[in-house]
Amino acid sequence: MKVVEGISALRSQVRAWRAAGERVVLVPTMGNLHAGHLRLVEVGREHGERIVASVFVNPTQFGAGEDFDKYPRTLDADAKGLQGAGADLLFAPPTEAIYPGGVASATIVEPPPELANILCGAFRPGHFRGVATVVAKLFNLVQPDVAVFGEKDFQQLMIIRRLTTDLNFPIDIVGVPTVREADGLAMSSRNGYLSVDERAIAPALHGCLVDAADRLRAGVLIDDVECGTIRAVDGAGLRCEYVSVRRAADLGDPGPSDKNLVILVAARLGAARLIDNLRCNLN
Amino acid sequence: MKVVEGISALRSQVRAWRAAGERVVLVPTMGNLHAGHLRLVEVGREHGERIVASVFVNPTQFGAGEDFDKYPRTLDADAKGLQGAGADLLFAPPTEAIYPGGVASATIVEPPPELANILCGAFRPGHFRGVATVVAKLFNLVQPDVAVFGEKDFQQLMIIRRLTTDLNFPIDIVGVPTVREADGLAMSSRNGYLSVDERAIAPALHGCLVDAADRLRAGVLIDDVECGTIRAVDGAGLRCEYVSVRRAADLGDPGPSDKNLVILVAARLGAARLIDNLRCNLN
Repeated sequence: MKVVEGISALRSQVRAWRAAGERVVLVPTMGNLHAGHLRLVEVGREHGERIVASVFVNPTQFGAGEDFDKYPRTLDADAKGLQGAGADLLFAPPTEAIYPGGVASATIVEPPPELANILCGAFRPGHFRGVATVVAKLFNLVQPDVAVFGEKDFQQLMIIRRLTTDLNFPIDIVGVPTVREADGLAMSSRNGYLSVDERAIAPALHGCLVDAADRLRAGVLIDDVECGTIRAVDGAGLRCEYVSVRRAADLGDPGPSDKNLVILVAARLGAARLIDNLRCNLN
Repeated sequence: MKVVEGISALRSQVRAWRAAGERVVLVPTMGNLHAGHLRLVEVGREHGERIVASVFVNPTQFGAGEDFDKYPRTLDADAKGLQGAGADLLFAPPTEAIYPGGVASATIVEPPPELANILCGAFRPGHFRGVATVVAKLFNLVQPDVAVFGEKDFQQLMIIRRLTTDLNFPIDIVGVPTVREADGLAMSSRNGYLSVDERAIAPALHGCLVDAADRLRAGVLIDDVECGTIRAVDGAGLRCEYVSVRRAADLGDPGPSDKNLVILVAARLGAARLIDNLRCNLN
């Protein structure tokens, strides 16, 4: 596996693969990789011959007071993991390569507010603008045929699908189901912020989603499920930010005829902000 | 010259050219072509083997009450002109191809406010957002090696250069000097809105810029040049929107040591809004 920091080296390698008729798959990450990321690489291999994984902790998607500074940088371990999972190239650029005009004032990609200002966007203003902007940059830098994202970040995945369609990127977006620990906790770099006691509490988040899905399938009203799940998350020892039942297709508010739903949750636990979601099909 | 409306036909032709090692040059236009546009094609031919010209009247760069509805659509004549100038493909998409998610709510590309909210941007709120968004789309649709824009739209060209750098598009941006009528009037589709009497007045706009450049080189203070030029434009029978002397490199306000300047003007004349600019080097 090649490790590349510079844009011209990245571009010439990708160009050579494309010239040889190979499909290029991008797996964008912020590093500090776990089995969930490595699963993205594995799924990526089913969609093309060459995997470019990127590791870049994107400053513009962190708000003031968020964990940009302490977000774990573990490039050597990440490189080993990616090589083991079958990546062909690790692109680990410096910030100046991704933000050549500086971070402060530059052209940005603004996702539609009805997708970007709800759920996590309401608690992290500007977060999805930063995500959309850096993803557009990575798309232009790598020019992949396929890009792979985890469904754990369900709202992000939806915004990236919209971005890809809206801006006419010729890229297939592949979503990969969340990888979980044995106790149900969704894998996340931010699980590393948890103390031992907090780690024991954290799986309750997934448990609450499973209960919520059961209640929805049993015919309980959405409002009641949402309120009950918020109480359950708080009761388990987390501090719930939101629980919301949405249409899985577009994150809109479900009407009586909508059967294909997703339950999304965000909660704080110690120094960590955890998110999770669960699809719930009422048919 | 091929005429193509659909995205898949466009992409397969461009892919074939690239596979043959040919450089692809994009010349984006809103149609109603004049000699200035055809000059873009001629210059484009110096930068690559294949020219894709696009004709698309982009709704999102027109404000309420502007001339979107009456903007001239002259595709047959445009096709003849482009073929004569040596274009290889004319891409003339329907609005649904460029805005697959609709025009109303979609991912947008937002240029930096210090470039987009000044000069024409102050008089046309949202205009450069619409320009940046459609240019990003065209870049992703055509994936050219080079894109050619006229210097008559100086602020637009600057915003597109920033967009290209900021979003890491692997595209060289080429600016082409303004083509003028014999009497100095900058060629523009909107000159067609002028009555015979107005057409006789319009060249004064260029004349005022030439005078302004002379005064700057003679050492007259910028504020005095701007005020005097506004009076001159109004005195010639136009209604001046702005006259502004800026740094040519970034449209910033010039300081005493800045020598590489541009004088920009916008004025209304009958149903037309005319813009023009003139570089002025003080060395």
